[in-house]
Amino acid sequence: MEFSKRIMAMQESPIRKLVPFAQKAKADGKHVYHLNIGQPDIETPSSFMDAVKQFDEKVLAYTLSQGIPELIDAIMDYYKSYDLDFESDEILITNGGSEAIIFSIIAVADSGDEVLIPEPFYTNYNGFSSAVNVKVAPITCKAEDGFHLPDKKTIEESIKPRTKAIMLSNPGNPTGVVYSKEEVQMIAELAVEYDLFIIADEVYREFVYDGMSFISFGHIKSIQDRVIIVDSISKRYSACGARIGSIASKNKELIKQILKLCQVRLCVPTLEQIGATQLYKTPSAYLQKVNKEYAKRRDIVMNTLNEVSGVICKKPAGAFYVIAKLPVDDAEKFVMWLLKEFDHEGETLMLAPAEGFYSTYGLGKDEVRIAYILNSEELKRAMKILTIALESYPGKTQ
Amino acid sequence: MEFSKRIMAMQESPIRKLVPFAQKAKADGKHVYHLNIGQPDIETPSSFMDAVKQFDEKVLAYTLSQGIPELIDAIMDYYKSYDLDFESDEILITNGGSEAIIFSIIAVADSGDEVLIPEPFYTNYNGFSSAVNVKVAPITCKAEDGFHLPDKKTIEESIKPRTKAIMLSNPGNPTGVVYSKEEVQMIAELAVEYDLFIIADEVYREFVYDGMSFISFGHIKSIQDRVIIVDSISKRYSACGARIGSIASKNKELIKQILKLCQVRLCVPTLEQIGATQLYKTPSAYLQKVNKEYAKRRDIVMNTLNEVSGVICKKPAGAFYVIAKLPVDDAEKFVMWLLKEFDHEGETLMLAPAEGFYSTYGLGKDEVRIAYILNSEELKRAMKILTIALESYPGKTQ
Repeated sequence: MEFSKRIMAMQESPIRKLVPFAQKAKADGKHVYHLNIGQPDIETPSSFMDAVKQFDEKVLAYTLSQGIPELIDAIMDYYKSYDLDFESDEILITNGGSEAIIFSIIAVADSGDEVLIPEPFYTNYNGFSSAVNVKVAPITCKAEDGFHLPDKKTIEESIKPRTKAIMLSNPGNPTGVVYSKEEVQMIAELAVEYDLFIIADEVYREFVYDGMSFISFGHIKSIQDRVIIVDSISKRYSACGARIGSIASKNKELIKQILKLCQVRLCVPTLEQIGATQLYKTPSAYLQKVNKEYAKRRDIVMNTLNEVSGVICKKPAGAFYVIAKLPVDDAEKFVMWLLKEFDHEGETLMLAPAEGFYSTYGLGKDEVRIAYILNSEELKRAMKILTIALESYPGKTQ
Repeated sequence: MEFSKRIMAMQESPIRKLVPFAQKAKADGKHVYHLNIGQPDIETPSSFMDAVKQFDEKVLAYTLSQGIPELIDAIMDYYKSYDLDFESDEILITNGGSEAIIFSIIAVADSGDEVLIPEPFYTNYNGFSSAVNVKVAPITCKAEDGFHLPDKKTIEESIKPRTKAIMLSNPGNPTGVVYSKEEVQMIAELAVEYDLFIIADEVYREFVYDGMSFISFGHIKSIQDRVIIVDSISKRYSACGARIGSIASKNKELIKQILKLCQVRLCVPTLEQIGATQLYKTPSAYLQKVNKEYAKRRDIVMNTLNEVSGVICKKPAGAFYVIAKLPVDDAEKFVMWLLKEFDHEGETLMLAPAEGFYSTYGLGKDEVRIAYILNSEELKRAMKILTIALESYPGKTQ
């Protein structure tokens, strides 16, 4: 009686593996600053619960597999404000961005096919792919380049006959990179030349700083039938627990195919869709305020990292993460040491070792992801503790 | 730019294909009795929304991938009342029974492996399997036998080296069959002899009539490490729109493996878990009342079917479906005719053609599934209309 090879091949979450050590540290009385997860601390707009509370149907029934029309309309309006024009049969509501990603992969790739993904990447891209027997082919990006894409020729070398799609997160989790117009254009050209789909995870669309403008893959008319836009309300409206995501594509036939997957799982929860519909109507002032807050936090993180000798980290323009190369022998060991052996005035912090964000063996060993999801005061304190920790860590390399 | 073979191979929902014809009938002023879907009309206990409305966290955050502890505890208590003893690390909360099924399949079968399923079966078993490249091997069951299982030898003939599991719905959707102790025992023996997992979809556990007792696969100690129990609150508490299901297994290592899939999709919606926790505390009087109501409805359906000459339908003991073999040339044509051409005093009905519930080509062509999810008065009326329709249908065979 054996489990499947595909499930055995799936990695345990590299972050969750460290959770018991954090729990132990807390049990021992240490305060732990969590910079290891992407759970925002910003308040969810109250319109979500206000709408949910008004639900008064006697039966909590199935809704349409595609999603409730009110939410689809709200998403269409939202996209219009970004000059992205989708019709109602070009959008599907999903159980979080997660389901949007796995459905997109199933729709474009068969068992044994490959999907090209810039690394370091959101760990779960790997998990979804393994679960459905699709191989991840990494495009390696480097801390020294601020995790921007390598040149076209380098990427072309990774494209094989069974490569079916390029999947990327822009603005990037875990790197914070925001691709330039030229990079987006290069990916678009590759998609046309090699007949690939583009699975564009743009859930951090609003999290772009320094007045930089965000280019969606949906903006490029020449590839619109190749682009699948994955979206989610989790980060935008600080509503991770609602698990509402979506797929949008101008390729109506693709949407029709993916709808079959939606039908198989019947529908997405009713109440969450009702709440999400109202979130999409949140005045833009909310998002502007959130953007300012994160930009400030990023600067706090970068100011500290810039002062520590041996750290390599180019200032990223988006999302709420940075990946920093640290002067340590091994980032996982460093994080374990932070939790088990170190404290500064009874406090320590938890970071995500970056090795799990790479599929190329050995990369990311001296890198960590820092999620700036604490308020400024706490974040300053956490970064100060990181500086002190780096000075006293026995495995420091500088 | 091609879509994957696996998604192209997935069938469109055979029921949903007919929906436009029902919509047209309604637009033309006909009243349509829907006996085609498994959406109960019973009221959801108010404890669900009462609990949801009390949620007052400022941030709607991720919850644990396994599910919230309160809900897992409630499910443990629920199972105890059935003499099923699960510990907290033997249960996972899922997005409906749907996700429980697809996760179970991924965990036990690789691309190209087979899962044995008695047919007619819940159509989506096929959809889930196709999506992850697992083949469905049917065990054909017959209307004449009340859809009970064939003998052991017949089932053994379908078991191949790549057969990894037997998956079954008990009480059965779409047949209403409740397996006897001997049948459950036979499946258990086969699982041991051929080293198979049993994926037991027992979501209709409370829907067993005539004082018949229900035997869960979880009751057989000798196979407890092989059994994966799929469950859902959708039918039990008339809460289909909550999308809360679960997986339970005494095989802790299997649960640990499936937890990796849960981690990849992060978590199940928070509010729905809070509501579901309270549903599991519903006094048993609610379920007894619901049981009585459905038993009454089943009798209404059976009384009519027994009177129509040429109909083959043994009285099923569970769920809220029957599959009836009708004296018609083609059940899909018959349903189309009901919607497009027939009416009795401005009324007609919709049934689910059963062909889509079989994977063996050609079977079920003269069968329909009737879901008795209308109140007695409406159901009587609908069944009367069915009788009249069968008399006047041009393609009748008797």
